[in-house]
Amino acid sequence: MKINVVKNVLKANDLVAEKNRQAFREAGILAINLISSPGSGKTTLLEKTLAALSGRDPSIVIVGDLQTSRDAERVADRAFQVTQINTGMSCHLYANQIASSLPALDLEQASFLFIENVGNLVCPGEFDLGENLKVILLSIPEGDDKVAKYPTVFRAADLVLLTKIDLLDAFQYDLKRVESDLRKLNAVAPLLPFSATTGAGMEDWLKWLQQQKAAKLGAQARFISE
Amino acid sequence: MKINVVKNVLKANDLVAEKNRQAFREAGILAINLISSPGSGKTTLLEKTLAALSGRDPSIVIVGDLQTSRDAERVADRAFQVTQINTGMSCHLYANQIASSLPALDLEQASFLFIENVGNLVCPGEFDLGENLKVILLSIPEGDDKVAKYPTVFRAADLVLLTKIDLLDAFQYDLKRVESDLRKLNAVAPLLPFSATTGAGMEDWLKWLQQQKAAKLGAQARFISE
Repeated sequence: MKINVVKNVLKANDLVAEKNRQAFREAGILAINLISSPGSGKTTLLEKTLAALSGRDPSIVIVGDLQTSRDAERVADRAFQVTQINTGMSCHLYANQIASSLPALDLEQASFLFIENVGNLVCPGEFDLGENLKVILLSIPEGDDKVAKYPTVFRAADLVLLTKIDLLDAFQYDLKRVESDLRKLNAVAPLLPFSATTGAGMEDWLKWLQQQKAAKLGAQARFISE
Repeated sequence: MKINVVKNVLKANDLVAEKNRQAFREAGILAINLISSPGSGKTTLLEKTLAALSGRDPSIVIVGDLQTSRDAERVADRAFQVTQINTGMSCHLYANQIASSLPALDLEQASFLFIENVGNLVCPGEFDLGENLKVILLSIPEGDDKVAKYPTVFRAADLVLLTKIDLLDAFQYDLKRVESDLRKLNAVAPLLPFSATTGAGMEDWLKWLQQQKAAKLGAQARFISE
């Protein structure tokens, strides 16, 4: 009985997500769902990324939080447009919350849409928002055992950013264990060490974003010409 | 419609939780629900706590994880009894999962029952397991903005452990902001800095546990004598 309820909620969500994806496709914008535990560095990643992209690639940000608009305020200066969604009691964003945000946004004018999900390493992996790509952040202080313990999100990942890599020496941390656990769940998602403090991984992250944008636009062009 | 479903699930959960609480009362055991983000130090806290309590206060541990029994293995040597619950896709424990675990446990023989919830700073705050007390762990690397952003669990807290306090100098961290945000939500829960590495706060934590146990047993004795 309970499982049926969950299935229906997920199915309804997926239908809306598909419409969101179509809107992104028509606008030629690449939508990226940022997922991690609380405090793994999603907002800091966004601050740095928006600064690097500004001028060349205007970007829209949708931020999900239970309460407050602190994260939206942090990125407001650097984003083309920002929307804050307060989820109240919900531990993840739903596709319909994204759908409701879209009419107020100029998707055609921007290159990237970054959706910062609620800090949670479980449910955001199950709820499709219509994004093109899921990026999972896992910070060093969280420990090297988290990939196996939270398989849902890592299975769904298109890229895993190992954030706060500058703190590696402060912990007993087995990088090989993380990579090995990830490969058991996900054969393809790159694992990219990253530090907003030292700038490590920043160049590769920006390169990955551009490659994904090019791949998507290329795929659309092929689709139209066929 | 969706809200009704959630309300019914919560109501059904609360009925089972109340039965669990009665079982704990009859057995004279103090049940503590440990809640935090992934990697905030729940299992490390348990390792240290069980070592300190061993002999004097036999303790039972119930561990919730999506997958793996890694955490249960880590505490197995030091606990009186251990049960691992794999929640699969669920981002929190339900009261009925605890209820199902109880028949195999000798509650009367132990002083404390520690329930390590799934790593998640949202939903575990909403689902009563029948515990006597909720202890929230918030680790320094998660940042000083998390209390206001995740109010549900902090509102419900009986104690907040500020873990990995030894890393304070590695971050720009405003302790006063954390305390001020907490006081807006919760007037009474102590905020206790803690480090499993240096041992800071360990004595106060153990003292708190003994006080809570004494208070509870005292309350029960009063109840019986009335």
